[in-house]
Amino acid sequence: MKRFLNLTAAAAFCASVPAFAQEAKTYPAPSEIVAAAKAQEWAAIAPSDLLIMDLAPDAAGKPRRVVIQLMPAPFSQGWIGNIRKLATAKWWDGTSINRVQDNYVVQWGDATEKKALPDGLEVVTENEYETEVNLSKEFYGITVGIETALRAGETGKGPTKLFDAYQKEAGFINGWPVASEEKAWPIHCYGMVGVGRNLSPDTGTGAELYTVIGHAPRHLDRNIAVVGRVIEGIEHLSSLPRGTGALGFYEKEEERVPILSVRLGTEVQNAPSFEYLYTQTPSFKAYADARANRRDPFFITPAGGADICNIPVPVRRRPAK
Amino acid sequence: MKRFLNLTAAAAFCASVPAFAQEAKTYPAPSEIVAAAKAQEWAAIAPSDLLIMDLAPDAAGKPRRVVIQLMPAPFSQGWIGNIRKLATAKWWDGTSINRVQDNYVVQWGDATEKKALPDGLEVVTENEYETEVNLSKEFYGITVGIETALRAGETGKGPTKLFDAYQKEAGFINGWPVASEEKAWPIHCYGMVGVGRNLSPDTGTGAELYTVIGHAPRHLDRNIAVVGRVIEGIEHLSSLPRGTGALGFYEKEEERVPILSVRLGTEVQNAPSFEYLYTQTPSFKAYADARANRRDPFFITPAGGADICNIPVPVRRRPAK
Repeated sequence: MKRFLNLTAAAAFCASVPAFAQEAKTYPAPSEIVAAAKAQEWAAIAPSDLLIMDLAPDAAGKPRRVVIQLMPAPFSQGWIGNIRKLATAKWWDGTSINRVQDNYVVQWGDATEKKALPDGLEVVTENEYETEVNLSKEFYGITVGIETALRAGETGKGPTKLFDAYQKEAGFINGWPVASEEKAWPIHCYGMVGVGRNLSPDTGTGAELYTVIGHAPRHLDRNIAVVGRVIEGIEHLSSLPRGTGALGFYEKEEERVPILSVRLGTEVQNAPSFEYLYTQTPSFKAYADARANRRDPFFITPAGGADICNIPVPVRRRPAK
Repeated sequence: MKRFLNLTAAAAFCASVPAFAQEAKTYPAPSEIVAAAKAQEWAAIAPSDLLIMDLAPDAAGKPRRVVIQLMPAPFSQGWIGNIRKLATAKWWDGTSINRVQDNYVVQWGDATEKKALPDGLEVVTENEYETEVNLSKEFYGITVGIETALRAGETGKGPTKLFDAYQKEAGFINGWPVASEEKAWPIHCYGMVGVGRNLSPDTGTGAELYTVIGHAPRHLDRNIAVVGRVIEGIEHLSSLPRGTGALGFYEKEEERVPILSVRLGTEVQNAPSFEYLYTQTPSFKAYADARANRRDPFFITPAGGADICNIPVPVRRRPAK
């Protein structure tokens, strides 16, 4: 009974437990919209776009696997080519998680900074932080749909741009949050994976990676390459003890978490399959609308808008056929 | 040497280590602006506004103390009055951390939901989610200063409003981030503390509390009371193992983290003293500007804007006199 009461209170806090959905069938929660999306609204993620990182087991001996989805073309492909080469060369095996800074990032790579890199890595220039895309078709075409949903419910005035606090256009291209002016670029939301670097003009090789474990550090956009996002197992990174050194670096070697292996999905036996809710679908638009205008039973005042990083693209394991 | 190289790379990633400041004295990093603020720009936090929560020591026997600053009037004072009564009654002693949901919240209180509340708690209404304040003086007066700093550097056009993705005005009142339409309300940024509740019209007593450990869940604004923020020790909450039950609740009793005591700062011997950078000061404005327009050496492209939750109000221990 204790557990039931406990979960009842929890459901009230989040309004995402089915028991309450029955009371307000016309205003489903975002999670319910996602659960009801049609099979054809989900897009499979190719195994070659998965990067699977196995950490040393935790103190209780439990395995810790982190799955990253690499960005598709046309974004950040220079670094992503390097990352594929590094994974194929098994370069990260034996390296470690070296930095955990609260409300910011978890960073991994070679703590010794002496490990030789494989041959053939590309030197990527800063030009690749932004990419030319056909915004009218690929970008705005999608964004306007979301905008309509976002604002129409509140204002009744029809389409309004999805506003971004960083004063750029923001929307989704093929399942990824991006911002744009003349060109477009991927943005730093929770769970995004980026490429550590030294001072400009260095842009990093891709050997030193981090993921965001706090409020979106959008000031890093266009200053560091975004190459992917964690789609499963981020808790193995976000719940690690915070480093006590400058910038959250671990001060003692024994604090570092060993990385057993990093492989492309194509190189892992029985690798799990994933799919994401394609962002040009009616269900994604309804989901974005519901994130911006929560009308499910727990809520009193819908926000009437949403930060793009507060509309995370749904990703799940592929259901068995 | 390993350590030095390691930290050098780290400095490059964040550009907040003094070594680099010498190269660009005219464009200090936000942390350098804060470090250089004058003593009189810092405002002391009264011990009566501190809520000090001691958790059971960690596995290695290290103490875990979390310090919360309660919001000053005129915001959320009904719930905060209850919280003071609950602390004085030692009501939280023996309760626990019961929920840790990744990229969302850590929640604590009485897992049994059977513990009797002290007499005299106020029933707070939903009207108190918003507060009438003299916006022109207390709110816009401050915000305009920040806006000027935020945008002038990029556009050269002078004051522009600090835009909020939730399409409301946003700014700072006496050291706290708030949004407004006709009235004003505190907002859910990383580390903010709120009051769990059941379905409306219930607004919670203040006995069930949570803090934000992920991207700002702004859809909760005006739907749940914000009563304070964690100013020290959030890592003792944010790095806890994620709960595996629905909504991140711990499924087993032994997973819950015992709370030894929660006290007001006035009731703790040798309680630490804190101060925050007052938000109407030149240094805060310069800091907000630098958060929106990073020009320190690591950065290539300043964002030209900032999410209000990406301008955290600096809080520190009071320096010894």
